[in-house]
Amino acid sequence: MRQLYKNCKILTEGRTVTDGFLAICEDTIESVGETRPAGDFDRERDFSGKLLLPGFVNGHTHTAMTLLRGVGTDLPLQKWLFDKIFPVEAKLTGAEIAVGSRLALLEMIACGTTSFSDMYFFPWEMARAAEESGIKANLNYPVQSFTPGETYAQNESARKMERFYQEWNGRGNGRIRVDCCLHAEYTCQPDVAAGTADFCRRKGGRMHIHLSETKSEHEACLAKYGMTPARWFAAMGVFDNPTSAAHCVWVTAEDRALLKEKGVSVIHNPTSNMKLGSGFAPIPAMLAEGINVALGTDGAASNNNLNMPEEMHLAAVIHNGYHLDAVPVSARQVLDMATRNGAAAQGRGDTGMLAAGKKADITAIDLDRPHLIPNLDTLGLLAYSVQASDVYMTMVDGKILYENGEFLTLDKEKICAEARETARQLYQ
Amino acid sequence: MRQLYKNCKILTEGRTVTDGFLAICEDTIESVGETRPAGDFDRERDFSGKLLLPGFVNGHTHTAMTLLRGVGTDLPLQKWLFDKIFPVEAKLTGAEIAVGSRLALLEMIACGTTSFSDMYFFPWEMARAAEESGIKANLNYPVQSFTPGETYAQNESARKMERFYQEWNGRGNGRIRVDCCLHAEYTCQPDVAAGTADFCRRKGGRMHIHLSETKSEHEACLAKYGMTPARWFAAMGVFDNPTSAAHCVWVTAEDRALLKEKGVSVIHNPTSNMKLGSGFAPIPAMLAEGINVALGTDGAASNNNLNMPEEMHLAAVIHNGYHLDAVPVSARQVLDMATRNGAAAQGRGDTGMLAAGKKADITAIDLDRPHLIPNLDTLGLLAYSVQASDVYMTMVDGKILYENGEFLTLDKEKICAEARETARQLYQ
Repeated sequence: MRQLYKNCKILTEGRTVTDGFLAICEDTIESVGETRPAGDFDRERDFSGKLLLPGFVNGHTHTAMTLLRGVGTDLPLQKWLFDKIFPVEAKLTGAEIAVGSRLALLEMIACGTTSFSDMYFFPWEMARAAEESGIKANLNYPVQSFTPGETYAQNESARKMERFYQEWNGRGNGRIRVDCCLHAEYTCQPDVAAGTADFCRRKGGRMHIHLSETKSEHEACLAKYGMTPARWFAAMGVFDNPTSAAHCVWVTAEDRALLKEKGVSVIHNPTSNMKLGSGFAPIPAMLAEGINVALGTDGAASNNNLNMPEEMHLAAVIHNGYHLDAVPVSARQVLDMATRNGAAAQGRGDTGMLAAGKKADITAIDLDRPHLIPNLDTLGLLAYSVQASDVYMTMVDGKILYENGEFLTLDKEKICAEARETARQLYQ
Repeated sequence: MRQLYKNCKILTEGRTVTDGFLAICEDTIESVGETRPAGDFDRERDFSGKLLLPGFVNGHTHTAMTLLRGVGTDLPLQKWLFDKIFPVEAKLTGAEIAVGSRLALLEMIACGTTSFSDMYFFPWEMARAAEESGIKANLNYPVQSFTPGETYAQNESARKMERFYQEWNGRGNGRIRVDCCLHAEYTCQPDVAAGTADFCRRKGGRMHIHLSETKSEHEACLAKYGMTPARWFAAMGVFDNPTSAAHCVWVTAEDRALLKEKGVSVIHNPTSNMKLGSGFAPIPAMLAEGINVALGTDGAASNNNLNMPEEMHLAAVIHNGYHLDAVPVSARQVLDMATRNGAAAQGRGDTGMLAAGKKADITAIDLDRPHLIPNLDTLGLLAYSVQASDVYMTMVDGKILYENGEFLTLDKEKICAEARETARQLYQ
């Protein structure tokens, strides 16, 4: 099918086209520009007053935790985690995870997310839900090992990770990919980490990890191993694979040099880092050093939503406040973090920007809102003014998943009702 | 007219009523509770799935700067202000201010704001627009004096402030109030400040000021007068009036003791303080010390919107990140900042909470959104998950100004078209 979107603003490589045309052939962008492409179209749509931009990539989340949204509000971190979150998580089975995953998909698709990287138990449930919905996803099963001296061969979670990889990687016409995953340094024995890295290398896969999220985690690793978590992961061979490292709040200058050298992508989660009191990741330094920085929401338990425009907004302003400087992170950098850098972190070089030959993964913003007038600077508008509710359309591989408040691949009423009922049973 | 809202959640004094009833007689709340009030109603509405809460009070803004939204994105503060903002402001006349003011009213009313405190030139235009719209407003004309040695009697802006006070204070059945205003210590000569404070005292009015927003402003005052800006304002007699002090980022512990002693309300503007790189106001300390802290958006040039739920979200999370602690500002405190504390700062003790005898200034949230499921904790939901677009209804003095996307007192299409055309001429 050949589609044409016309009379709209289009954010393309390094510039904004006004009154532009974007043509799509099947799942791929055919052209972007000021002039109408030749030939006939099966679908031709007037998108006056709309802005087309690359779909958002949520680079790090725990989607099914939507069911834990609002658990233990305003408690200190350890009390929140051990007294509130873990007891609820212990009750979760595949049935609840399926419901929480679909609830998360509603929220993500409505805010313009076209791809996400998910770390959670029961990824089979999310894989099925994501495949049905039409969204792209890098999913993983997080390997953990708490028994001192445990080997990779002995570890049960590693078997699940391998099985999930074999069963799901590349399905849905490549929309679903499976990454290898180590939850974190403090939840893993060395041999299990090294074995996971080795499995990943043999498969030609990608790694996803939590890295130096909190000060205590960072310092405990130094005390235990005499090296930082980044150095430890490097020693385990993890960084010999393309890796996404979430948080990186407490990484040192030496750690950053290592991440840069190894081509590790940093996934910045500003809301979660603020809400949980984790601290300010050195994002301006990372950007200056040329590290690939992407953006994530983290889970809804620590956010408390999965809203990429909100995440862009926080990433755009909090570092200014912290550094007493109005310019450490630019609007352009924030947009790149939320789109092309996220696509790069996922190993999806065929998307993340609107240009001929790239996949048609597109978010449309309705500019006809009082809070988006005047539009003097489209990038600034996106970083500082746009809200998730301004998303008019979400498209993946040329297929519309959401438009004007309607979901085309998900049953919103059914999912919301199931989520309410599941939460009622979980917390009764 | 007697109105009944039924079957809804209602946030009332210290608790949340489920399946509740809220009765309104004329402009006043008659009752809030679990049981249906006796008698007949002229209007009876089923608000199942909605949450009623006190309308938001935007405690500090410069509304007409909506027309400057996005001017000079990502420039350093001084360059942004002197090279970009001031030249545009120099072109503004009453006609543009009228347009920008109405655009701001659309945005504020749609996000559930029922009252705001505005500091800007040409307040006559906003006064007319606010009166027509039905919103409540504490407006002011900011006194400035740049000529060394100038007296209050010589100062031209003071004459405008006095005239605006005489013409507009108390109009619109008390919905429009006029505050006395000194722009800031660094824009005012001592005698002019003392004279303004004296005028305010004689009228029994309220003061509105900018206080210690930036480090350089705070330190320049110390160098010039040998005292902090707070101490200087106190010496001028300003704090002998009820005062709202915006920003207070750099106030010292001694300043805070003074603000507490004098009953000064602090208006926290988290987005603006972050975006402009001003820094972190010591809000957790102020709350612990019992200072009345309210919330404001500042102007759209430094925010870049007038979105109170977004401001609540930032106030709820940024201090956690700065203090490496998940609990310095609670969801309850953030809601109070956005409602009753703001009303108190405006001298409107008759509103700011939903209780019998208070004015019917009400915001309704539509809870039927994927990102608001589950609702385990209504206060947490408001602080961490709710978006401005979740506002379903905005009511002031029992009169609905906005419902389900429609404005009942403002012509949205006309105002947006005028704003676009005004911006086109301003920036051509």
